[in-house]
Amino acid sequence: MKKLSQLINNQIKDWSLDQQFYKDEAIFDLEIEKIYMNSWLLAGHESQIPNTGDYFLFSLLTESVIIIRGKDGVIRAFMNVCRHRGSHICLESQGNIKRLTCPYHAWTYNLEGALVAAKNLSSNIDKDNLSLHHCSVDVIEGLIMINFSDNPTSLKMMKQELSEPLQMFGMKDLKIAAHRSYSIQANWKLSVENYNECYHCAPAHPEYSKSHSLKFDESSEEYQSAQKLMKDSLTQCGMKDYNISAEHEDQIESQEQYAYHRYALFDGYLTGSENGQGLAPLIGAITDYNPGASDFSLGPVSFLLAYSDHVVAYVFTPVEHHASQCDVYWMVDKTAKEGVDYDLERLVWLWDATTKADERIIANNQKGVNSRKYTSGPFSEKESTEKRFISWYLDQLRETL
Amino acid sequence: MKKLSQLINNQIKDWSLDQQFYKDEAIFDLEIEKIYMNSWLLAGHESQIPNTGDYFLFSLLTESVIIIRGKDGVIRAFMNVCRHRGSHICLESQGNIKRLTCPYHAWTYNLEGALVAAKNLSSNIDKDNLSLHHCSVDVIEGLIMINFSDNPTSLKMMKQELSEPLQMFGMKDLKIAAHRSYSIQANWKLSVENYNECYHCAPAHPEYSKSHSLKFDESSEEYQSAQKLMKDSLTQCGMKDYNISAEHEDQIESQEQYAYHRYALFDGYLTGSENGQGLAPLIGAITDYNPGASDFSLGPVSFLLAYSDHVVAYVFTPVEHHASQCDVYWMVDKTAKEGVDYDLERLVWLWDATTKADERIIANNQKGVNSRKYTSGPFSEKESTEKRFISWYLDQLRETL
Amino acid sequence: MKKLSQLINNQIKDWSLDQQFYKDEAIFDLEIEKIYMNSWLLAGHESQIPNTGDYFLFSLLTESVIIIRGKDGVIRAFMNVCRHRGSHICLESQGNIKRLTCPYHAWTYNLEGALVAAKNLSSNIDKDNLSLHHCSVDVIEGLIMINFSDNPTSLKMMKQELSEPLQMFGMKDLKIAAHRSYSIQANWKLSVENYNECYHCAPAHPEYSKSHSLKFDESSEEYQSAQKLMKDSLTQCGMKDYNISAEHEDQIESQEQYAYHRYALFDGYLTGSENGQGLAPLIGAITDYNPGASDFSLGPVSFLLAYSDHVVAYVFTPVEHHASQCDVYWMVDKTAKEGVDYDLERLVWLWDATTKADERIIANNQKGVNSRKYTSGPFSEKESTEKRFISWYLDQLRETL
Repeated sequence: MKKLSQLINNQIKDWSLDQQFYKDEAIFDLEIEKIYMNSWLLAGHESQIPNTGDYFLFSLLTESVIIIRGKDGVIRAFMNVCRHRGSHICLESQGNIKRLTCPYHAWTYNLEGALVAAKNLSSNIDKDNLSLHHCSVDVIEGLIMINFSDNPTSLKMMKQELSEPLQMFGMKDLKIAAHRSYSIQANWKLSVENYNECYHCAPAHPEYSKSHSLKFDESSEEYQSAQKLMKDSLTQCGMKDYNISAEHEDQIESQEQYAYHRYALFDGYLTGSENGQGLAPLIGAITDYNPGASDFSLGPVSFLLAYSDHVVAYVFTPVEHHASQCDVYWMVDKTAKEGVDYDLERLVWLWDATTKADERIIANNQKGVNSRKYTSGPFSEKESTEKRFISWYLDQLRETL
Repeated sequence: MKKLSQLINNQIKDWSLDQQFYKDEAIFDLEIEKIYMNSWLLAGHESQIPNTGDYFLFSLLTESVIIIRGKDGVIRAFMNVCRHRGSHICLESQGNIKRLTCPYHAWTYNLEGALVAAKNLSSNIDKDNLSLHHCSVDVIEGLIMINFSDNPTSLKMMKQELSEPLQMFGMKDLKIAAHRSYSIQANWKLSVENYNECYHCAPAHPEYSKSHSLKFDESSEEYQSAQKLMKDSLTQCGMKDYNISAEHEDQIESQEQYAYHRYALFDGYLTGSENGQGLAPLIGAITDYNPGASDFSLGPVSFLLAYSDHVVAYVFTPVEHHASQCDVYWMVDKTAKEGVDYDLERLVWLWDATTKADERIIANNQKGVNSRKYTSGPFSEKESTEKRFISWYLDQLRETL
Repeated sequence: MKKLSQLINNQIKDWSLDQQFYKDEAIFDLEIEKIYMNSWLLAGHESQIPNTGDYFLFSLLTESVIIIRGKDGVIRAFMNVCRHRGSHICLESQGNIKRLTCPYHAWTYNLEGALVAAKNLSSNIDKDNLSLHHCSVDVIEGLIMINFSDNPTSLKMMKQELSEPLQMFGMKDLKIAAHRSYSIQANWKLSVENYNECYHCAPAHPEYSKSHSLKFDESSEEYQSAQKLMKDSLTQCGMKDYNISAEHEDQIESQEQYAYHRYALFDGYLTGSENGQGLAPLIGAITDYNPGASDFSLGPVSFLLAYSDHVVAYVFTPVEHHASQCDVYWMVDKTAKEGVDYDLERLVWLWDATTKADERIIANNQKGVNSRKYTSGPFSEKESTEKRFISWYLDQLRETL
């Protein structure tokens, strides 16, 4: 594929991508195979399926995955594809089942995926070769990650390095209080780029910018002084300071990428709320409100933003070459009661408003990128994470050549 | 087209088709040209157009056909395409007209398709060469069949062998009591495959399975004893026993394929009704209710199911590579009066419910087939008609290589 | 592209186009590049943006253009694409702005398109190279024409020859009383062809045919006598007779094509109204109602029809290969007051009804053209302008070979 290598080589370092990367369907298909079929994706939280036979579905493009807890308590993931004629087996997005019975011809699999019943099947057919196709799955501090590759990159280092900060937020003991999906009429990379830079926060997100110091340049006095206040109070809040970066050029060979950073909220803001006040009971090891927010990266397209009393998760997935989806999950302590310990609309306010604004912003970005006259432009100095994402992305495509 | 030949050769005998056959648009286009443009299709019944100038339209993908009765009483079929600039001529789905006048520039054709008026046309232009394009059409016991090929396979043997059983059901003297179109979000082959096997009847169609013995294995005692009861009473019902198979490996050279088989209803069921009772006056030569249903195949994608008091017809057509349509017609004796001799909702109950269920079932089949992890699976022993359809289908594609 | 050259060479002169020209997406893409990206298009009227900072958007396929009046009163056109990451800058279809500020990251351009503010931008980046991309724009007697080519054909001769007749209708002093967009489910050429011939007027447009003599053959006595009456009264109405043809074979090298012709209304019709009475104050130099309508061509897809008291403009643009759009503008004297000097529904009646009929007519044309059995047909002698359009169109494609 000579054209692609030219496109990649013609890219100016630290300038936005050429239009073709956002419009070409062949490049899109390549991205799916190379990136989405080989990256770990946040699919949910184990609190969604506490009991044997509990399951939920995770969907990506043509793929549907059944994530289910077995009799042994182990969480497994199967492709939602019957081995007989290919029908979807589970039609509801979640539920509890004793066995996996295809509604078409009643082929039946046990919770380990083995075919245990299929009428009228010739005795020549070996049922042992007709188990459900597996999907790679792993759990890290309660977070369920899946990977469509049969030979996925390792999560060993991510687990080793992120377990402590995840435990600090009691990740294992959270539950999903809300889950909303946002449709973005733009290529998935424009959605991920948008998430990766806060250059647009000040002009485009007044709700966020009122409370989050990241709207400032990191070298600015405003940012630095807020950062110092936040860090100085970590210990008295039962928290520790971490700074972890294993993304792109810092990525460890054969390991999935990950990162952790924390930045300050402005004075008067305990958490990501409209009025600055707390939204839910403190989580994990945290003993008092610390005015900050922690950014986690879990692979290339899954992110957490952890406050003292709740965690927001973001997962970006493609829908077609000019449409993508952002799934946002709001998580609180699993013992917290809605209406008593937290108010759902107050909890989701900030990131619902911000993600809705992004739906519009990113779609307008795609519209302009579609123009024949669009040309690549220079990233600002406040788009360094996005630069890194683009650089990583181009490396991924280069590997396919 | 080497890739296609590999795909065909890689197919395991009696296993379901490779994914590409259900997803690839080039294969879809090939199927349309090879199969749909060369097969006889059931388009309607002559009772729809009893008088001179009566017409109805038959549509398939980009094609619209005017089926119209001439002054000589003969039924003809013309492409709904003006020879001037190509506009559709008939815009209503049915009606009665004296001449075929294009609404765009008023070019006018007689009921034999000859251009009889066109203003401002240079005298150099020979109007004799501007007749409407014909479509092949034939009528068999009142059933109107069309074929887009100018040189279609013969219906001679089908007429010879099926005329008697069709007359037994008085096919010529029926009328269409109801016609409904069902949209199936799946490739047309998944729809035809579904119609061709009753392996799914027991798990998926409780309404049907309550009364129709085909839900059982044909070798089972239940099936055989019901079958015997049904056959033993044929004569006293004014009926005869036929068993005709001229499909695929039994297909006669240069002849369209066809078949006729009859299977039993369970005790207490006179016809395909909810409560087992009759739905309409007895049809044709039938003198008493016989507890059975007769399957006719008329070419590869048109089918009849004939009960003692009504006939249901099914025609499967493609819409796009992942969408198809099922047209269902309910036919009763032409003298029967709605509301007096039959109740429309009771008449359509079984096959409306069953086809709506199939809309959902087949769409879920397509969803799973779309998965990267879908692999071909083994047909059961109760899917023999489907095996034959698949084998015939692969032969059709092989002929295009 | 050998196939295209064959298609072009196989065309019979003065017969309608082969189906491929209306269905093939590659040909559609070629047409956009060759024709729409290189032709002058009527975008609006300068009365829409009287003041500094007034702007409106013009959209075509992937392109959005900001047409804006500068501090110097000059009208400029910029691509609606930020030079940073490509976002659309103006999101409203019209408005008044002091500067062009991108809503995404607040990059800001002045009304001449120069980048005047961009935070956090490395000093290595030369802002002078980051002005908004220009779009070619020109104004002819108040009509704003744009051209996506950076090196467009000249409007010099059009201005020279059409200025007088445009002034006769006071084009500079008109305003847009109404603007409506019509969606036509057909290739753009079928829409333009339809506008270019009046062979269909008598059978398809009763409203138009009641008053406009063009429904008759130009050689007919009815047409000639109406024409004579209309021409004889020109002078006493303050008008002059022009007959200008610089289209296709008469097109002047390196100049955009244009034309002007006038034809009569029937006795009793002062203008294109339902009852024949006037619709608005007389326009331009016109001193009394003259029973005629003047056809202007401004490039290949923009047209005016000028009556004594109003002007209707038509612009045909593609949406996708089988969908197009017709924008219709009704213009009256800028001093006329709605509800006092003209009634909007009476004003738009004729061409709203006629264009709605065309939406249906042209879509039915496309449907028939899509048929496998469609074949090219002979143009009548009353389709001479359409013949010329087709001949010009084929020449355009020939130039791409």
